[in-house]
Amino acid sequence: MTEGAPHIDPLFHPRSIAIVGASQNFNKWGAIILHNTIIGNFSGKIYPINPRVGDIFGIPAYPGLEEVPGEIDLAVIVIPKEKVIDALGAAARKGIRYAVLITAGYSETGTDGKRLEEETASCAKKHGIRLVGPNCMGIVSMIPERLASWMPSLIPEPGPVSIVSQSGNMGYSLVQALNNRGVGVCRLISSGNEADLKTPDFLRLLGNDPETRVILSYIEGVDDGRNLFDAFRVVSPKKPIVVLKSGHTAAGARASASHTGALAGSDDLYGALFSQTGVIRARDIEEMIDFAALFSAQPLPGGTRVGIITMGGGWGVLAADACDEAGLSVVPLSPDTRDALDAILPSWWSRSNPVDLVAGLREGDFSQSLVTLLSCDYIDALMLLGIGYGNVRGRFIKESPYAEYYNMKELGTQFMEADEVTARTIIELIDRFKKPMVPVVDQAVITKNARFIQMLKEKGIIIMPSPKRGARALSALTRYGAYLRKERREPTA
Amino acid sequence: MTEGAPHIDPLFHPRSIAIVGASQNFNKWGAIILHNTIIGNFSGKIYPINPRVGDIFGIPAYPGLEEVPGEIDLAVIVIPKEKVIDALGAAARKGIRYAVLITAGYSETGTDGKRLEEETASCAKKHGIRLVGPNCMGIVSMIPERLASWMPSLIPEPGPVSIVSQSGNMGYSLVQALNNRGVGVCRLISSGNEADLKTPDFLRLLGNDPETRVILSYIEGVDDGRNLFDAFRVVSPKKPIVVLKSGHTAAGARASASHTGALAGSDDLYGALFSQTGVIRARDIEEMIDFAALFSAQPLPGGTRVGIITMGGGWGVLAADACDEAGLSVVPLSPDTRDALDAILPSWWSRSNPVDLVAGLREGDFSQSLVTLLSCDYIDALMLLGIGYGNVRGRFIKESPYAEYYNMKELGTQFMEADEVTARTIIELIDRFKKPMVPVVDQAVITKNARFIQMLKEKGIIIMPSPKRGARALSALTRYGAYLRKERREPTA
Repeated sequence: MTEGAPHIDPLFHPRSIAIVGASQNFNKWGAIILHNTIIGNFSGKIYPINPRVGDIFGIPAYPGLEEVPGEIDLAVIVIPKEKVIDALGAAARKGIRYAVLITAGYSETGTDGKRLEEETASCAKKHGIRLVGPNCMGIVSMIPERLASWMPSLIPEPGPVSIVSQSGNMGYSLVQALNNRGVGVCRLISSGNEADLKTPDFLRLLGNDPETRVILSYIEGVDDGRNLFDAFRVVSPKKPIVVLKSGHTAAGARASASHTGALAGSDDLYGALFSQTGVIRARDIEEMIDFAALFSAQPLPGGTRVGIITMGGGWGVLAADACDEAGLSVVPLSPDTRDALDAILPSWWSRSNPVDLVAGLREGDFSQSLVTLLSCDYIDALMLLGIGYGNVRGRFIKESPYAEYYNMKELGTQFMEADEVTARTIIELIDRFKKPMVPVVDQAVITKNARFIQMLKEKGIIIMPSPKRGARALSALTRYGAYLRKERREPTA
Repeated sequence: MTEGAPHIDPLFHPRSIAIVGASQNFNKWGAIILHNTIIGNFSGKIYPINPRVGDIFGIPAYPGLEEVPGEIDLAVIVIPKEKVIDALGAAARKGIRYAVLITAGYSETGTDGKRLEEETASCAKKHGIRLVGPNCMGIVSMIPERLASWMPSLIPEPGPVSIVSQSGNMGYSLVQALNNRGVGVCRLISSGNEADLKTPDFLRLLGNDPETRVILSYIEGVDDGRNLFDAFRVVSPKKPIVVLKSGHTAAGARASASHTGALAGSDDLYGALFSQTGVIRARDIEEMIDFAALFSAQPLPGGTRVGIITMGGGWGVLAADACDEAGLSVVPLSPDTRDALDAILPSWWSRSNPVDLVAGLREGDFSQSLVTLLSCDYIDALMLLGIGYGNVRGRFIKESPYAEYYNMKELGTQFMEADEVTARTIIELIDRFKKPMVPVVDQAVITKNARFIQMLKEKGIIIMPSPKRGARALSALTRYGAYLRKERREPTA
């Protein structure tokens, strides 16, 4: 414990961790969690606790917590439920103040389990130990500790997004999906049955965590709505919270009751709670990831007015539909903007928003069109479609059996280089105009132009895979921007 | 022309093709379309038409259509619009009956262009030539010709899905996304401005095409709603038609008017038209691909009652929500089914639908649980969640720096083999029970377990990337099944 030190919470920043029930049998979670903690390169001390072996994975093991020579900031407990209360006693004697209880078999199994869970929680309370779990998947804290004391076969990449999840699997799914999109993870708490620390507590912790820029929360239900409301109210003005609330249908609520025993609660109630507190609601995992990707790096738009730039008509129509449906406004171009674009673009451009550059794209047209639209005070954000094909086309040409003839190789290289200019232009103009730009890129580019996506990704600009998903994510960004503007004019009661 | 021969339509099955305006300059579509036709391995004769060169890509070129020695079934025309009417005259004299007019600059550019388009269409009509386009991206017919006379940098993989698209780019996006998911393409028609042949004509052709099992149609607007209705009415009972109708919002309709000049029409009207004719409406590109993937290989369900099998509670809750929202019924288990599962599963299984197998999966449990649910006459389809992790876990363990200790390599191999059993079980049981099973697999598996996905893919079983998308696709399959049952009891008026 480093009490009083700013932002140093032993749950996220332990200098040492004990794994009670560490094992060398890879069929047991006690082995897997120890293994992941080690190979994740945890920066602090690791103490495996196991009375029957001298060392595990080359690290000295101790028969009990009290035999550990140094201080312990955090205990991860993975032993049969009958032995947990004793272990908490030992932890208390060792001065441990935080424990993550992985062990299952509590309230999720029925009345007896519920009684044991209550006993365990009150034992922890008596000892002054704060508890994560039980029945959870573990904890991740990647900055700067690189702590991955959890079950999944994955060491997360570090980054700005933190997760509180009432389902361990969902937490894993979210981390994997974020990392796959190029978005890193800061903390993950699998909150399990929430016998002591609950979702609102974790939200508050993450609200004060300087490394966390975006919070994702998977919620099946809470027993204290007021507490959740208060946590949202305090944290939302500091950073965006994206919530996936499940169990909002009759079938889902029944499933939820049999999963965590959570009362899913009235969906209308949750809806009102979210909208009053600026919480952004996602409707599925993909949407949650899309929102996190956009929130993690793009500037907040000043309003809902969007300009669409497309390299093909069909894409433009779908994007206009998607923006309209998502509550964004596809604003008409002013005569001045139209004149400015007339001077840049070939005569057959669409002359309206969506701005269809058609196939006739010359070097410079794209960049100048972007600048023209971004300079408009009546445009808050841009959506870009049909970009990133240069590499797809260039490689196709260069790999052709006819590439040796007709200068095709040279042409292919030109196409490929054009993409780099596009990526650099987007990066530079977001920075210059502080307006969000959402690149929507389709499957050909996703499959075949990893470099283009990577160039953007390195600057935190994450592509969206369809106009609909791009528009919904941009709309979420817009709603949070509007909430913040409102909050700042009207201080919290 | 092979008149009278069954299913031999020169548009889809040309024995020879002339490319009028073929070029060796890869900055021109005339070069790209010829190139793609050649490298796609078209099985018939290819005649490049170009008055100024002797051969292109090693193939003899001819100065005009009339100089070609053999018969020509199909002409693809890629010359300036001023020369098209002359070319149609030459085509007629050569006995050509179908032409794909790539050339742009017609009705999409304004009044003058519209006039020229009308002239061109009536010239074609006078000559007895049916016209695709103008202002289109070309044509694809992969079975058995391997004809890829189109613009994109992609030779499609052959398969059961055919596409009619009023946007060339959208057609390209669809083909690429289908192929990427492991679904092959049979025909693609980029219908362009539809000066002569229109979407309903192509739907009818595809309705009679024995190689086409699923039809996708991207529609911005049609000028003859009755014709579209009739085509749907005739084709829907033969095979599923999935439509993406854009321009259904005010912003989208404006964009559509400036793209193809199409009148988007009332969305309510289209909605009624689709539901009366059993047409499945998709709301975006991803949904269209999901639907095509499920329609292309899964049996039609007898009703909307779905069983959910999951390896984790959170996934089950999201799946139940998603099914409920998509109009599927997450049926309660009968006491008999519950007893049967009690005999197979560990005591802590969820004892309700979703059937949560929890982590305690033993060899055989999964397969027996599937058989138990598939045998229920009150269950029409299954959704499977949390499968395919064996390979992810197995590889993670085997690649660990500690893999040499503790028999981890062996354990890793066991995990990896378990996936193959899972995949084989799914394949076998779909075949045995003729009920659809939708595997929903998350990003960890998509990213890291290509083999599992590939095993299923080879049998046409395409994974869905989220519960919501899986449920919506299954619901689409269900709606088409219900339409067919209704059609068969109540013959068409």
